[in-house]
Amino acid sequence: MKERFVSYIHELQNTICAELERIDGKAKFVEDAWERPGGGGGKTRVITNGNVLEKGGVNTSIVHGQLPELMKQKFGVEEANFFACGISLVLHPKNPFAPTSHANWRYFEMYNAEGKKIDAWFGGGLDLTPYYLFEEDAQHWHQVCKNACDKHHSDFYTNYKKWCDDYFHNSHRNEARGIGGLFFDYLKDGNDGLSHDQWYDFVTEVGDSFLPAYLPILEKRKDLPFNAQNRYWQEIRRGRYVEFNLIHDRGTLFGLKTNGRIESILMSLPPQVRWDYNLKAFGPEEEKLMNVLVAPKEWIVEKEFKS
Amino acid sequence: MKERFVSYIHELQNTICAELERIDGKAKFVEDAWERPGGGGGKTRVITNGNVLEKGGVNTSIVHGQLPELMKQKFGVEEANFFACGISLVLHPKNPFAPTSHANWRYFEMYNAEGKKIDAWFGGGLDLTPYYLFEEDAQHWHQVCKNACDKHHSDFYTNYKKWCDDYFHNSHRNEARGIGGLFFDYLKDGNDGLSHDQWYDFVTEVGDSFLPAYLPILEKRKDLPFNAQNRYWQEIRRGRYVEFNLIHDRGTLFGLKTNGRIESILMSLPPQVRWDYNLKAFGPEEEKLMNVLVAPKEWIVEKEFKS
Repeated sequence: MKERFVSYIHELQNTICAELERIDGKAKFVEDAWERPGGGGGKTRVITNGNVLEKGGVNTSIVHGQLPELMKQKFGVEEANFFACGISLVLHPKNPFAPTSHANWRYFEMYNAEGKKIDAWFGGGLDLTPYYLFEEDAQHWHQVCKNACDKHHSDFYTNYKKWCDDYFHNSHRNEARGIGGLFFDYLKDGNDGLSHDQWYDFVTEVGDSFLPAYLPILEKRKDLPFNAQNRYWQEIRRGRYVEFNLIHDRGTLFGLKTNGRIESILMSLPPQVRWDYNLKAFGPEEEKLMNVLVAPKEWIVEKEFKS
Repeated sequence: MKERFVSYIHELQNTICAELERIDGKAKFVEDAWERPGGGGGKTRVITNGNVLEKGGVNTSIVHGQLPELMKQKFGVEEANFFACGISLVLHPKNPFAPTSHANWRYFEMYNAEGKKIDAWFGGGLDLTPYYLFEEDAQHWHQVCKNACDKHHSDFYTNYKKWCDDYFHNSHRNEARGIGGLFFDYLKDGNDGLSHDQWYDFVTEVGDSFLPAYLPILEKRKDLPFNAQNRYWQEIRRGRYVEFNLIHDRGTLFGLKTNGRIESILMSLPPQVRWDYNLKAFGPEEEKLMNVLVAPKEWIVEKEFKS
């Protein structure tokens, strides 16, 4: 499974980078290969100052070694080794009408002191952070998420959409980071009646859904005319993105506290950001976004009826 | 003591705001008075888009009520009430050669269920975050800090300078936030041979030292000509300021987790900020700053000899 998922994420990294470069038409991803002192390493690919993407990263990492102290506590285990591989991406378009997107898919194995595998699971998801709300974009994004889920289990979309809403929440402001998508973790052999292989099929199905979910939205919004106020609002809202990542995001904080590669972790932060004291929404278009952030909503239009 | 310190911080707030408005020459502080649902409130005073100050806040708060759950755990007490008052300021000048400054001074009392005072202490400090290093500014800043300390105890400057260096440290990047100053907490009756009244004298002496420490530096740097690269570097370094406040600062995180007033807490964040992937210092002037941030140094030039 390790080899299978590793080759999957490397292929997906190539596909996603190629498609984004095609849409951008100007900037190219630059790769930094890095090694982890404790074992393994990664390929950080960053694109900057493009026609479409102001800043973005599509990173893979394959790391292994002794389980860090923080994770031992978290999982309640003694001496243990781990293997983790994953792909993680964050894309910050230049145009304020084009949403930021984030996704990651990962696989984790844990071994006891004798080297025996004692646990293994998948995790990941994808979520969208618009600066202006286009309902049709939110509907499309969630419909692609739902289609991927429904092929595997009738409850997955509902469950993982809720998990996403709960997770990407700036509790200190009582508002969502964005309009959500899917979030899942600890997907293990036997859970929900799915085998390890079936979880692989599910997670890679979701991984394959990222481009069909995001690209049509990016294509539609990347060239919309915008003014200085739209840009200002985007920079203010990017501040909320930073707040979430630095205050609440488990992955970011875990990376920072376990000597992860800082620049690969903080690649997620937007390029230009503003904090104004007590700024309120400028007008009805900004209000429209805020209304769905303070109360996450259901985006699927045509409900299927199931007994 | 409560009334005495409350009137001190209100006077200091007025003095500091008046002096800053004078130097700025354009922008004025705007006050938001707010109330805390659990008891008390504050006066948040913010200045924006000035000639000199791009964004700044000088806030006082006087709050009381039931000790929040997080603090009960921290102090290991059962049901308890508290009283806290303090002044807190952060100033972000526009000119990249003028440093950001931060300071706060506070007084805290704790009472048991019967209303009896069970503990009381002072805390606070001041620290400086330059974007370019002028050694004479750092020396001046620390000399004013040392002079204030030396009147009260020969060890205070050394101890509180070290505490400041240790505290304002971006451990995830292994660099200091700035060039430090003073930091102290839990200054209680009897500690270091000082009475409660003597701690009041010390803390207010440090409070009174803020303007003499900062204003001469601000005056000297506020009108220096700067170019786009200087500004870019300032915005990148401001990103580190955000990282410290959101990832490490106990006060910020405590405020966010105990339903503090968000806008008063996050007033500290700089107005315009950048994150670039893996940006290194542009040249020797930026390197000069980085060199003192990775290894905090002693800034006092003429050592006094003591037996």
